[in-house]
Amino acid sequence: MTIEPLIAIDAMGGDEGISVMVAGAALARHRHPNFRFLLVGDKDDIALALENHPNLRAYCEILHTTDIVSSDDKVSRDLLRRSKRTSMGSAIDAVKSGKASAAVSAGNTGALLAIANFALRSMPGIDRPALAALLPTMKDSDVVMLDLGANTECDARNLVQFAVMGAAYARVIYGIEKPSVKLLNIGTEEIKGKDSVRAASNYLTDTDSLPLSFQGYTEADKINSGDADVIVCDGYSGNIALKAVEGAARFVTDLLKRAFTSSIRSKFGFLVSRPATELLKHHLDPNNHNGAVFMGLNGVVVKSHGSANEKGVAKAIEVAACLVEDKITKRIAEDIKSIDGLSADFGDAGFDKGDLENGI
Amino acid sequence: MTIEPLIAIDAMGGDEGISVMVAGAALARHRHPNFRFLLVGDKDDIALALENHPNLRAYCEILHTTDIVSSDDKVSRDLLRRSKRTSMGSAIDAVKSGKASAAVSAGNTGALLAIANFALRSMPGIDRPALAALLPTMKDSDVVMLDLGANTECDARNLVQFAVMGAAYARVIYGIEKPSVKLLNIGTEEIKGKDSVRAASNYLTDTDSLPLSFQGYTEADKINSGDADVIVCDGYSGNIALKAVEGAARFVTDLLKRAFTSSIRSKFGFLVSRPATELLKHHLDPNNHNGAVFMGLNGVVVKSHGSANEKGVAKAIEVAACLVEDKITKRIAEDIKSIDGLSADFGDAGFDKGDLENGI
Repeated sequence: MTIEPLIAIDAMGGDEGISVMVAGAALARHRHPNFRFLLVGDKDDIALALENHPNLRAYCEILHTTDIVSSDDKVSRDLLRRSKRTSMGSAIDAVKSGKASAAVSAGNTGALLAIANFALRSMPGIDRPALAALLPTMKDSDVVMLDLGANTECDARNLVQFAVMGAAYARVIYGIEKPSVKLLNIGTEEIKGKDSVRAASNYLTDTDSLPLSFQGYTEADKINSGDADVIVCDGYSGNIALKAVEGAARFVTDLLKRAFTSSIRSKFGFLVSRPATELLKHHLDPNNHNGAVFMGLNGVVVKSHGSANEKGVAKAIEVAACLVEDKITKRIAEDIKSIDGLSADFGDAGFDKGDLENGI
Repeated sequence: MTIEPLIAIDAMGGDEGISVMVAGAALARHRHPNFRFLLVGDKDDIALALENHPNLRAYCEILHTTDIVSSDDKVSRDLLRRSKRTSMGSAIDAVKSGKASAAVSAGNTGALLAIANFALRSMPGIDRPALAALLPTMKDSDVVMLDLGANTECDARNLVQFAVMGAAYARVIYGIEKPSVKLLNIGTEEIKGKDSVRAASNYLTDTDSLPLSFQGYTEADKINSGDADVIVCDGYSGNIALKAVEGAARFVTDLLKRAFTSSIRSKFGFLVSRPATELLKHHLDPNNHNGAVFMGLNGVVVKSHGSANEKGVAKAIEVAACLVEDKITKRIAEDIKSIDGLSADFGDAGFDKGDLENGI
């Protein structure tokens, strides 16, 4: 029997609203005929959006909600209290109750992290969940990078747990038994890096039982090189590195656009070489890499980029479905047992439930 | 009377050795006939390299040294002890004694930072020196970014001092009275950033007397946007952001190269649009942005990239000369008085002489 995952979709989140979320679901269903959806949000608006996708209708349930999390909602006790009435909170609750296998939202990232963390809680053995995403590389496969912003400060134990979770993710998508893992560092001798990064490196080097192959440090200029399956870092550095890569890629393509339009000759050259630049555009299109996974929770939650188009939303849904089918949560739970001695090794001094719960 | 700065050049540093350092000096001298040089290193090798630049000979003194700092020398007491015999250490000593106005080296960055810090010491009012560089932007001017790796951990007071130093640098090169300054942060609401960054932001917002215009936070995807004259961050984040930008720029240009060679048609298009891609190459060429400044010392020290060509070395020399002519050290000393109350505001808890002196 084929698994038929039911994926809860926060239909109200994202810059483009319901129509893009529903169109993305239709596209994902078109590619994977076993997908089914729980569309969460205003029932009338959802019904209207479904009129454009008559084939999807039979595979969707609608869960009506009356409140939304807006993009400028701050994480607060009040937000968590009213979250059950929101489309985002109800999608996550469907995962919690076991009705849905995964939740996908394009809404406010901070709120999604907080609500998912509050409702689903960290898995046993994981102190802090982390945000993981796939980044393009020069090789055929993407690189899994985490944490991309869920935790501003991370201790060595957090980083080791991120390594195990990232490796589980890479194993699921690439079928590699022992994915190669590197720690992001500034890597030059003169500045030896942070204590937490060095302690994590020592632990990963010395521990043979881990379901991964630790390959030492990487510097941020090698993120897209494809030298590792997984890159691990704290959420502050990860967010800065991710944004710097995005910004620089846009900077270069903008310069290129400017250069190509600088003369008649270069405009002509651009037209001739269009298939080449289209290839580049495709490779760098964020919609082809959409879907950041909130790893380490008791349930699968995927963040779709707020500005993703229907192709991007479909990609995020596929990421969620893939993680459900491959039982990522169970795999991480098993893998994390290989670092059972972690608390003893690092002590509990660095233990901290994280920023997400501070002040809530 | 024209100022005739004598610039000490560590002739032995860099991947390419003496010939590139001397060729760079010749090129800088060609553009700026008032430059004079103190070439520090093996006198015979320098004399040999000068044979290719007969016009330069009359404007150079040679300081013979017998030892070098190698690229894999670790920062240690021993290194500092023998530094006086090295070309790098002697170039810096020439600045300390007042013989030279500035030192330029393409050698081991960590060693250069440590030796310069040890010999020249921080300026009054500066707790920690920082590494600053000019990064290309979409606008006409580059952005000054610091710290790019001298200090792994920085407190709010360090960041405020970096802001003042970076603004002094921007004022010198662009002649702007109050350069705009932004603090690098992860900037999203859900993760409010580090305490140190927020405290620095509050101070910079509240303090009117500063010779700069504080513009709040920037995220790493805006580094190359040209929205600010100066971007301030801790050395760990700065190094990661800088390397991520470099890596992503190379990634995109490599993808482009691959795309352009993927078919006969695109190869033809590439040839036609070559002037456009050359423009891009010129804009991104690290040699056009060479010369990282070690700011906050009692003297001007500039790091040339180890792999810089003669154009890059000339650029680093020009950066050094520009800072000397505009009396950057004196300007920073004056500007830093505007934050005289800083110790009182932040307390001395965060005061720390920095990583560079740890364990030495």
